[in-house]
Amino acid sequence: MTEILVVGELINSTRKAVKAALEAKDASVIRRLAREQVEAGADIIDVNTATSMEHEVDDMKWVIGLIHDEVGNVRLSIDSPSAEAMASGLELCQGRPLINSINNDPRGRAFIDIVKRFDGDIIGLPMGGKVGVPRTVEERLDEVDIMLSTLDDAGVDPSRLYIDSIVMTIGSNQEQGRIVIESVREIKKRYGSRGVKTSVGLSNISFGLPRRSLINQAFLAMLLEAGLDMALIDPRDVGMISTMRAAEAIVGTDAGCLRYIKHVRKLAG
Amino acid sequence: MTEILVVGELINSTRKAVKAALEAKDASVIRRLAREQVEAGADIIDVNTATSMEHEVDDMKWVIGLIHDEVGNVRLSIDSPSAEAMASGLELCQGRPLINSINNDPRGRAFIDIVKRFDGDIIGLPMGGKVGVPRTVEERLDEVDIMLSTLDDAGVDPSRLYIDSIVMTIGSNQEQGRIVIESVREIKKRYGSRGVKTSVGLSNISFGLPRRSLINQAFLAMLLEAGLDMALIDPRDVGMISTMRAAEAIVGTDAGCLRYIKHVRKLAG
Repeated sequence: MTEILVVGELINSTRKAVKAALEAKDASVIRRLAREQVEAGADIIDVNTATSMEHEVDDMKWVIGLIHDEVGNVRLSIDSPSAEAMASGLELCQGRPLINSINNDPRGRAFIDIVKRFDGDIIGLPMGGKVGVPRTVEERLDEVDIMLSTLDDAGVDPSRLYIDSIVMTIGSNQEQGRIVIESVREIKKRYGSRGVKTSVGLSNISFGLPRRSLINQAFLAMLLEAGLDMALIDPRDVGMISTMRAAEAIVGTDAGCLRYIKHVRKLAG
Repeated sequence: MTEILVVGELINSTRKAVKAALEAKDASVIRRLAREQVEAGADIIDVNTATSMEHEVDDMKWVIGLIHDEVGNVRLSIDSPSAEAMASGLELCQGRPLINSINNDPRGRAFIDIVKRFDGDIIGLPMGGKVGVPRTVEERLDEVDIMLSTLDDAGVDPSRLYIDSIVMTIGSNQEQGRIVIESVREIKKRYGSRGVKTSVGLSNISFGLPRRSLINQAFLAMLLEAGLDMALIDPRDVGMISTMRAAEAIVGTDAGCLRYIKHVRKLAG
């Protein structure tokens, strides 16, 4: 067992401040978000410029350049619904990239070509094959089977794959919490021997609820116990990082609780 | 699925302030701890006067009288290694008591007589039959089998039983976190159909580590997902109650997240 990977989610063009920075070409906002996330402990920085529409590719390149200039060769997550933007982003990555994301929709074949062309880890959304958005654990697992079969055919190593179990808010459907936890547990059990890992975009769980960080933290602890390998979060949320370090100490992935103790010292200092 | 029961652990003679209050017959300390725990949301108040030695029975009676006088007919947990003190406490309980605790040690036969004589829920420690303190999940489950067999022979309904999976600190043996979580999950799976429930004395997990509440909160979230029914905690620890309410919203035992939302309003107010 290894420590969970933290993907910093903040450089995302659906966030108002980032969208404005992209429009105004305000490098300082991007540089600050990159630095803050790395300093807060992010292992990978997500880059999403999708709302820039026809400027997505240019914005992607500009942001990647800024991040590498600001914090060196940190790992990047290239997050785009456009295969063109994805490829142009991946070309500029200095560390091993994270391809965010592929799914089973037949219209997304270009992404299979991308994961063949570029090495790096892959976030896979278990959807778009037999069903659109999966409702149950079983539908998610069926979609994982489809994805693994596609990747096998393409000669892509399944150990590059992090399955994102698609978190939806418990505010509208309360079964979603248990479904995602059970999906993570089952994916590790069924596909762990092939090296398949798990990821979540965690904060969706609390959308529409008050004091979201309380829900997010409890959910993170549960997911980590279920075997989560990677989480897209705001790494500046000290409560989230504290929960992660505590959870790792409990499940034993932080041998001797050393990382936890170091974190607590940093909190105090 | 129902909401988790909170047992307030503070009126315990191993705590310095309580020991001093018992020695000085300082009713105000006991009254305040009773009121604070009930106001913080405790469903049951634990009473332990065991360190008073030859005065244990008198102190037990005195404390129970004070608590009922202060907060009415709250449920009490009678917590003693002495069958005599246990019985004298149970006689004075106004609400349905919690008998804390029985185990499989043949020297503890008097406690089986007590659970036959007094109605109420029972905390059962899975130890003392084949092994002393169990090290593994399997040893815990073996001890549960022994306990259920004893209770069956005595004609005691197993649905009164809350198995405490015996939490030990991860500071000295890091496997203990996963072992307790897995034990709770397995006990619910194997014995849930007979009505057997689960409990923990949670805070032992973090003994010897800094910022214990961080560990305790993450552990509580994991245990609640595994199916925990009852926790002995300090209910005045707002972080613990927040974690509990958030976890209940996630796993769906708090339908519509209503209890969570009410808790958050109370935090804000």
